[in-house]
Amino acid sequence: MKLEEVHQDHICRTIEVAVVEPTKVSPAVKLPPTADDSETNGEELYIPPLNFAMVDNGIFRSGFPDCANFPFLQTLGLRSIIYLCPEPYPDTNMEFLKSNGIELFQFGIEPCKEPFVNIPEGTIRKALKVVLDVKNHPLLIHCKRGKHRTGCLVGCLRKLQRWCLTSVFDEYQCFAAAKARVSDQRFMELFDVSSFRHLPLSFSCSKRIGARFLRPSSSCQQRLYKEGS
Amino acid sequence: MKLEEVHQDHICRTIEVAVVEPTKVSPAVKLPPTADDSETNGEELYIPPLNFAMVDNGIFRSGFPDCANFPFLQTLGLRSIIYLCPEPYPDTNMEFLKSNGIELFQFGIEPCKEPFVNIPEGTIRKALKVVLDVKNHPLLIHCKRGKHRTGCLVGCLRKLQRWCLTSVFDEYQCFAAAKARVSDQRFMELFDVSSFRHLPLSFSCSKRIGARFLRPSSSCQQRLYKEGS
Repeated sequence: MKLEEVHQDHICRTIEVAVVEPTKVSPAVKLPPTADDSETNGEELYIPPLNFAMVDNGIFRSGFPDCANFPFLQTLGLRSIIYLCPEPYPDTNMEFLKSNGIELFQFGIEPCKEPFVNIPEGTIRKALKVVLDVKNHPLLIHCKRGKHRTGCLVGCLRKLQRWCLTSVFDEYQCFAAAKARVSDQRFMELFDVSSFRHLPLSFSCSKRIGARFLRPSSSCQQRLYKEGS
Repeated sequence: MKLEEVHQDHICRTIEVAVVEPTKVSPAVKLPPTADDSETNGEELYIPPLNFAMVDNGIFRSGFPDCANFPFLQTLGLRSIIYLCPEPYPDTNMEFLKSNGIELFQFGIEPCKEPFVNIPEGTIRKALKVVLDVKNHPLLIHCKRGKHRTGCLVGCLRKLQRWCLTSVFDEYQCFAAAKARVSDQRFMELFDVSSFRHLPLSFSCSKRIGARFLRPSSSCQQRLYKEGS
């Protein structure tokens, strides 16, 4: 792998990596089967990463993806990944990114155990800017388990989308489940989104789909279906 | 309200309801504030329904929405709602649908308590056809709590999207949590999606975003960020 340091100013480091021809891609990152394949009767199944979910148009979240998840991730046509852990990205995952032209944004947030919790606000702010930039979409946010660090970043995005705190916490708890942390929720509550207010939220399901599909008020149809009919 | 029976063939009943002028809409369904409003500093917050989530492009899921959720639902620009309970839709919700031109597809599935569980497969099949029809998007699927009936329908959709069962169950359990039912999971496992295989899945995030954004393999950039920099 040829590493060339392109840019370093104490904010980010950009590494240009070698071109990988599709034919040189390892078997683990083979192209996913299409709907026309003969293996559509259950043999070829996609394995989304742990805690995978769609956050909004072009934004996904999950736990750490491994090679079993690569065929599924390819179906998302990702342009970038936000990785929220300090550990180096594994070679297998870097190979997958290279062969699919996916940019990696790594924000090294140390894992925390209560009561010694310190979600770094500045890092979350930088990550949120990357999330909000549609040029990076489709984008996957992940940490290790897709619960705490990912949950906090998504929670801050929801605040910017003007979700009430109850709903922000409801979503956070849906993924964190028994591992939900009061300190994470306090961080989201106190996170001030006012400095992001000027940014366009064109990526949001709220705005895009609304603008594209909203029909004028006219009539309403109701269809009732019953079993056996 | 003027009710006119347009179509009845033992499969569905279509009810054309009166036009409601926007000025006559109740305060509960007022238009949501825009990003330009002066109340953007926390005063005007959206309240998504319980268990709300995005399933895929143009497909959402939730528990039963009440009038507090209407401003949020308006931001989704919904074209239709799939309602999975047998009880009549409340008048307030019907008013909201009318004033926003949203079509209601009601599939009356009785609530079940284990061990007396009987998810009606035929009804789920009909509902799934409605989900797959992009003409109905953006679409919200809901039952009462967004756990069991909604979870089963979404699970069948995931099988059609070729998700492995582990991931289907993982998502189901994320919303059902402590109320997860083995019988629901057995229903999803046994649900045969082969009859839907011929339908195009153009609605899927997999296909749409992938086709729109996927770039050729060329290079990969990695950016590393650290707190304090």
